[in-house]
Amino acid sequence: METKLQDGFEERLAAHAARVEDELRRLLDGRERSGEIARPERLLAAMRHGVLNGGKRLRPFLVIESAALFGRSCDDVLAAAAALECVHCYSLVHDDLPAMDDDDLRRGQPTVHKAYDEATAILAGDSLLTLAFDILATESSDVPRNAITPRQRIDLIKGLATASGIGGMAGGQALDLAAETAKPDEQGIITLQAMKTGALIRYACEAGAILGGATFAERERLAEFGSAIGLAFQLADDLLDLTADTSSMGKATGKDAAAGKATLPSLHGTDWTRKQLRGLVGQAHELLEPFGAKAATLRQAATFIAERKS
Amino acid sequence: METKLQDGFEERLAAHAARVEDELRRLLDGRERSGEIARPERLLAAMRHGVLNGGKRLRPFLVIESAALFGRSCDDVLAAAAALECVHCYSLVHDDLPAMDDDDLRRGQPTVHKAYDEATAILAGDSLLTLAFDILATESSDVPRNAITPRQRIDLIKGLATASGIGGMAGGQALDLAAETAKPDEQGIITLQAMKTGALIRYACEAGAILGGATFAERERLAEFGSAIGLAFQLADDLLDLTADTSSMGKATGKDAAAGKATLPSLHGTDWTRKQLRGLVGQAHELLEPFGAKAATLRQAATFIAERKS
Repeated sequence: METKLQDGFEERLAAHAARVEDELRRLLDGRERSGEIARPERLLAAMRHGVLNGGKRLRPFLVIESAALFGRSCDDVLAAAAALECVHCYSLVHDDLPAMDDDDLRRGQPTVHKAYDEATAILAGDSLLTLAFDILATESSDVPRNAITPRQRIDLIKGLATASGIGGMAGGQALDLAAETAKPDEQGIITLQAMKTGALIRYACEAGAILGGATFAERERLAEFGSAIGLAFQLADDLLDLTADTSSMGKATGKDAAAGKATLPSLHGTDWTRKQLRGLVGQAHELLEPFGAKAATLRQAATFIAERKS
Repeated sequence: METKLQDGFEERLAAHAARVEDELRRLLDGRERSGEIARPERLLAAMRHGVLNGGKRLRPFLVIESAALFGRSCDDVLAAAAALECVHCYSLVHDDLPAMDDDDLRRGQPTVHKAYDEATAILAGDSLLTLAFDILATESSDVPRNAITPRQRIDLIKGLATASGIGGMAGGQALDLAAETAKPDEQGIITLQAMKTGALIRYACEAGAILGGATFAERERLAEFGSAIGLAFQLADDLLDLTADTSSMGKATGKDAAAGKATLPSLHGTDWTRKQLRGLVGQAHELLEPFGAKAATLRQAATFIAERKS
């Protein structure tokens, strides 16, 4: 059973993205954060180039909406949402490097190593990753003191590190680079994608639960919801890589096939993939049931992710 | 007034290094940490190559000895000390890359991108940085519960992020790369070095104070001690680059001059540098005075850093 996108979802996504963009702009302005000695100008400009690129800010959106289930305001969780986006953007900056995926374009703009240079792109990625943990460990003057407890901050930091390190996103990228020659089987592809893209989307939903003071069971349920939509996200991405063209994506497409990399859609075809996507959306909606009407936006997000065209 | 190195200092340094090496080996074994999906073998091997290289483990030593001033055992602070070493090693792996300093040798062994490949070296560095924050956010079963409070963990994470991000180590490396053409003046060189090498050594001492439950004033005093020996460390390094040969250093020397990079020793000469080093050691010893006899090992550390021959 499909849920049709209701009026207002894309507007809500765009409104959150604008808030996140403002927060990222503030975090990456010229002013030093507490304890910083200086912010070298060119490095900061490269970080801004890698982050302030008009992205959909899907992961922060999931943080904000998951936290909203528990009555947390966007203001309270905006910094944590922005921290997660810094990690996502760092991964794009490093993945685009010549030694990795060697991409010249990202969202229609030159990638960071093209606009600056390789060394600066490496350091910009490093600094964005580091900044994310700085943000999560910092009490913001905009948020009521103790609105986020030290215990919650630790859980956010632990979760982000686990999702993005060797056992998550970075490890998934290593497996992905190896996939050209190693030719993983279906289970290998599933593991690779759960690590490379799934872990951070799962974390986005779990982070919202942590920020909301969820019970263990609720937190686990939102993490599972994140896993389902994370896999849907990847399937939709691979489907687009098979079927869309470069101009509508703002980046090179058909690269998986050119690189000899198998994906689930390339193994099973487009009909199978669309069926899987419907199944994942159904599963995601089921996981949200205990939250009732409050979860309407997250339900729409699951549908949006599975049906996205770019 | 110089303090002569007493018998036993280098043995103590080596004994701590062995403990840290064991801890790092344990952190980088094949077993997944809580929440990790898998540890891709080649990436893990590259991380081990970049870390388990027989380093002196000076920064962890400073954490352990600073914490010991407040009666904390090595067992209690070993994980935090190892986390800091992961960040130091990540920075070496990335600095050695062809796009950065382009070094083939590190401690007489092939650098990570030489032993593996560039993409793996980038991801190994990324994963080591991420692992450091994972470690700091994780309660170890080897340490009594609540021996380190969530508040202390937050302070450790915030301090590490600040010391290693754009406003610290990574920013310093960006300035260092630019120094070949930008030709910084004396103040520029001092800022560059306070960021590139000073910040992490300063943090090492401050982290010990945090772990020890120090007062604000004590913490500040140890951070200042760290700044003094951090500058001494860099001056001694630059002096060695001017005067030593490749075989005794296990890495290329004379590179600063070849790259047209000015250092304080190259601007002011060796006599001036040795005088500065004596002054910094004196300043470091003065900062330790309130801690009395307990600080004997840290006093020796300051002398050791200023007088080191490799």
